[in-house]
Amino acid sequence: MNRKQLLNVHLKIQPYIHRTPVLSSRLINNNVEAEVFFKCENFQRGGAYKMRGATNAILQLTDEQRSKGVVTHSSGNFAQAVSLGSQSLGVTAHIVMPTSAPEVKKMGVKEYGGIIYECKPTLEAREQTANQIARETGATLLHPSNDVDVIFGQGTAAMELLDEQQNLNAIFCPVGGGGLIAGSALAAHFFGKDCKVYGGEPFEADDAYRSLKSGKIEGNETTDTIADGLKTTLGKNNFPIIKEHVSGIIRVTEKEIISAMRLIFERMKIIVEPSSAVALAALIRNRKSFKNQKVGIIISGGNVNLSNLPFK
Amino acid sequence: MNRKQLLNVHLKIQPYIHRTPVLSSRLINNNVEAEVFFKCENFQRGGAYKMRGATNAILQLTDEQRSKGVVTHSSGNFAQAVSLGSQSLGVTAHIVMPTSAPEVKKMGVKEYGGIIYECKPTLEAREQTANQIARETGATLLHPSNDVDVIFGQGTAAMELLDEQQNLNAIFCPVGGGGLIAGSALAAHFFGKDCKVYGGEPFEADDAYRSLKSGKIEGNETTDTIADGLKTTLGKNNFPIIKEHVSGIIRVTEKEIISAMRLIFERMKIIVEPSSAVALAALIRNRKSFKNQKVGIIISGGNVNLSNLPFK
Repeated sequence: MNRKQLLNVHLKIQPYIHRTPVLSSRLINNNVEAEVFFKCENFQRGGAYKMRGATNAILQLTDEQRSKGVVTHSSGNFAQAVSLGSQSLGVTAHIVMPTSAPEVKKMGVKEYGGIIYECKPTLEAREQTANQIARETGATLLHPSNDVDVIFGQGTAAMELLDEQQNLNAIFCPVGGGGLIAGSALAAHFFGKDCKVYGGEPFEADDAYRSLKSGKIEGNETTDTIADGLKTTLGKNNFPIIKEHVSGIIRVTEKEIISAMRLIFERMKIIVEPSSAVALAALIRNRKSFKNQKVGIIISGGNVNLSNLPFK
Repeated sequence: MNRKQLLNVHLKIQPYIHRTPVLSSRLINNNVEAEVFFKCENFQRGGAYKMRGATNAILQLTDEQRSKGVVTHSSGNFAQAVSLGSQSLGVTAHIVMPTSAPEVKKMGVKEYGGIIYECKPTLEAREQTANQIARETGATLLHPSNDVDVIFGQGTAAMELLDEQQNLNAIFCPVGGGGLIAGSALAAHFFGKDCKVYGGEPFEADDAYRSLKSGKIEGNETTDTIADGLKTTLGKNNFPIIKEHVSGIIRVTEKEIISAMRLIFERMKIIVEPSSAVALAALIRNRKSFKNQKVGIIISGGNVNLSNLPFK
């Protein structure tokens, strides 16, 4: 992968995605004592950055592959993104979702024309069901975070952010399956000026933190976090990129996640998922190290269940 | 008032306000069968359009008047706006708030340096307390919606919207005290190309609807609405402008307000007050009349109590 390849990915997916705005808030800047630039992928089509990677992966398929459709398993945002991307490109989307997936995300999938297959809420059940559908239909399996075309697609959000703010000292993003942070790290490497990339991760699902420490992919011991998008684990394609290009993973408590989420809702008047708040929470926890710096934050998505917000 | 005067107001307040973005949503467009442009004053400083009028009114004061401060009564957004505008211009702000005002708005006032005086939640108590403070301190009384400088300031939001979307067929805004709709109607008159202005109003506080019908200012018989910013009544300075330049007031139910609010939260991923949702609800109720037209909506503000959202 090089700079030019990432530029090409961006050119290819551009007709199918929004160029999302970069917002900032004086009050948050004063609070954090840094200049913070929020790349608002909650305004992306489908409500999350996942549209970038999904579109890029589908665009790589041959005509014959496209005619047989695609299949994926996802608790939510990638499912919606594959459905919407497939719809735009006239491809059938088979979507495996755990029974525990939020209703709002299931509705999104249906609205975008995806065919839902429910399974038990375990990684094993998800993978098994998806593999079975792939065998039966000939559909191409798309992995939400470990497919290289998906990783490159996700990197275009950080690339656009660096296009607008060229002198960022750091970019924070949430870490779930590792696709976003791997893509962002590549973008920062190719387009930043010594721009470091940090991941924010819940203490309750800290596989990436422990994986970087041990040097091999670790599983999650618990996934008892409000950040429902971050319960997955790193993959063999994104882990080497993360090891090479990510400067650190900062873990945050559930309380810190909710507090950062409330800060964004109240101050920026935008709706973000708990997973997105994890990135800001990580910056706030380590704010001393970033004092007076320019920091980018990838707001990964805004698909929340409004009937069940964590504010008391 | 003429076109040039409104341009001058805009020039004067520009250093103190944000130029807020105009957003749109394909899904809402499809739903309404019109092209809808949302002028997002929820992203304005202080979280509402009120900053425009408050700043313009304070800028009109002489140095001597400024040294004695300003006083206003408001259930929320104008209170925050006067506090923030006063802070920017080094003026003391005395703010009379009913005991029923949302906590988040009181906090905003305090944060922006306003001095709060609590009073009973009736218009009489509010006016009486404000008049008393004016007498005792020599502070200039600013009315939230009936002061002409406030009205002209509020009109700059619609003016900016028409600067970006010159061919709007209509602009919808919520109607409370009448300042926003009067200012918007002037802006549409000066800068629109036959752009009509409509007000959205809750059935539960329909004084403007009945005032336009009877030809004189009517009070509210009930104010039992979730749209807490729309409980006030029209004033003698804004009513003549409304009579001359507003094409109609469309009333909506509480259910329609909440449903429009949810649509904005879910589809646009932005946070708006119930009062702002009233404008979209009015368009949705009358959508047949605006089919395939270009319609602007003034999103008046985003200061909601997150602990008490109306979504079940």
